[in-house]
Amino acid sequence: MNDQNSTHINSLYEREKQKINTQLQNLFKKKRPKSLYSSASYILKNGGKRIRPMLVLFSAKAVGGSFEKVKHAAIAVELLHSFSLVHDDIMDNADKRRNLLTLHKKYDLSTAILAGDSLLSIAYQELLKDLSNKAKTSIEIFTKALIEVCEGQGYDKDFETNKNVSIADYKFMIKKKTAALTEMCCHLGAILGGGKEEQINSLKLFGRYIGFAFQIRDDLLDIAAEENKFGKVLGGDLIEGKKTFLLLKALELAKGNDKKLLIKLIKDKGTSTKNVIKYKDIYLRLGILELTEKEIKRNTDKALEQLNCLKDREKETLVWLADHLLNRNN
Amino acid sequence: MNDQNSTHINSLYEREKQKINTQLQNLFKKKRPKSLYSSASYILKNGGKRIRPMLVLFSAKAVGGSFEKVKHAAIAVELLHSFSLVHDDIMDNADKRRNLLTLHKKYDLSTAILAGDSLLSIAYQELLKDLSNKAKTSIEIFTKALIEVCEGQGYDKDFETNKNVSIADYKFMIKKKTAALTEMCCHLGAILGGGKEEQINSLKLFGRYIGFAFQIRDDLLDIAAEENKFGKVLGGDLIEGKKTFLLLKALELAKGNDKKLLIKLIKDKGTSTKNVIKYKDIYLRLGILELTEKEIKRNTDKALEQLNCLKDREKETLVWLADHLLNRNN
Repeated sequence: MNDQNSTHINSLYEREKQKINTQLQNLFKKKRPKSLYSSASYILKNGGKRIRPMLVLFSAKAVGGSFEKVKHAAIAVELLHSFSLVHDDIMDNADKRRNLLTLHKKYDLSTAILAGDSLLSIAYQELLKDLSNKAKTSIEIFTKALIEVCEGQGYDKDFETNKNVSIADYKFMIKKKTAALTEMCCHLGAILGGGKEEQINSLKLFGRYIGFAFQIRDDLLDIAAEENKFGKVLGGDLIEGKKTFLLLKALELAKGNDKKLLIKLIKDKGTSTKNVIKYKDIYLRLGILELTEKEIKRNTDKALEQLNCLKDREKETLVWLADHLLNRNN
Repeated sequence: MNDQNSTHINSLYEREKQKINTQLQNLFKKKRPKSLYSSASYILKNGGKRIRPMLVLFSAKAVGGSFEKVKHAAIAVELLHSFSLVHDDIMDNADKRRNLLTLHKKYDLSTAILAGDSLLSIAYQELLKDLSNKAKTSIEIFTKALIEVCEGQGYDKDFETNKNVSIADYKFMIKKKTAALTEMCCHLGAILGGGKEEQINSLKLFGRYIGFAFQIRDDLLDIAAEENKFGKVLGGDLIEGKKTFLLLKALELAKGNDKKLLIKLIKDKGTSTKNVIKYKDIYLRLGILELTEKEIKRNTDKALEQLNCLKDREKETLVWLADHLLNRNN
């Protein structure tokens, strides 16, 4: 992709993101009770990248559909994503998200539970605004993903007490918790955009692999990012003993004392902040960061392969989005 | 209604309730992760009356439709109701429901939030099983009610800190929190059962007024029920300072020291168990229990009036259900 194209898509992305943000804010403005809807809209003000709505829009574009056709679906997927963030943050007892207080810390537990429920209810209301004859189909696709997201969160919770989680278990979990949602975004965009069956199937897989890559990159950033940029404590996953791709890969490969230390972290359900550096050293010794990068690239490549059935001009926004998301410079 | 008819409908009710219970249990049996779905199905084992599914079934029957046509909708409304119970119990910090531990006490907070979310997701999946061309319409009706239930809960939460709640505010709140759901049940039953417009509108109103009557009766039972039968601490609403129909009516009518005591209860956000009898005495002095009975009867009568457009044989199950629910002996 040449620089001119990339700049062009970048401004398209920023423009559409701005529109999505405005729509999200307007959605709650006049709704009452204010206590409910102002807390629900709080999570939407955190300056997220709006990746999921953008997957909907760009998938529609990739099959020759207009943004207009999928605008409600784009809003709905962001609301579903926000619902899951709000409830997950309670379950994870997280204080901050993107440098802002999480909803249950900014308000309180009850408000956060109800705000999450509301976000989901409004998501369905948005989907129902679709006047084409495809509303039932899109609600089917959406509901299937919602169920998977809940199940994924269930498996993730199970992992907290399960001492024998394998990389395969992990992949099964993120397929539901993360990839089902990105897959659904592309599926919705392709269906509502009027794609052919082959295009729809390819875009679904594109969404799934992007989701895998994205989640594993999230795991990597926890230990490899610059602190302020990421808006979370560095090594937070290690501190909480979270079974990330990196930790599970390290467990697979480590021997001797390293293995003992990793098993101790699992057994103790985490470690103290001062030990993060020790575990990062193990990762470095075992080449875990490179192996993780490789896994991200493998999934990104698989995602991009799916786009072969599309013409260059049609797929360029999705290719750009994949590159943009996953910080690839090639 | 003669005794023979009543016995006949009673066994129909019990038979259908049993079927609903079996379907609810089977729904979760094979689903994984087990941790998620066994906790979700826990709330469905509490031996509820299944009023809401029954409103769906009997409304369909009232317009000449079959139970078969609305069976998925009947399951969906019970799942929505259960979802709201699970999340509301967390918000109310309730320990017990129907003599059983609430879900977040039996398991934990995270499990209860996720189980609630799951119940709602499976409700939509059930609605989507409807193979008629009315699935979109029924999802619209369902979603509208879901939004109202969330808003009603929001208003109810606001009432906790609002010192100036009027009877009108209270009615506005229960219209959303309780009556929107019973209205939706009858609406779904009537629409999917193939009712005519006039029948549908009447049944919606029947559902709404039944919901009003039912909620106000719930408020009454808190102070007037036999303890074990009700499965809650008697006077629990007073202890928590809940702005029920009874408390708000008493506030309207009380003077002098009674008024002072009622205002103190509001200000203190509740009272101790030993004071319940004192407040019950105020209610008795002011005739609040009779006034509440009157309000329940007024709403029940308004509900039954709506059934005038139906033939006697068609409406008898709904008439029986209203009587049965509201313990009327006439």
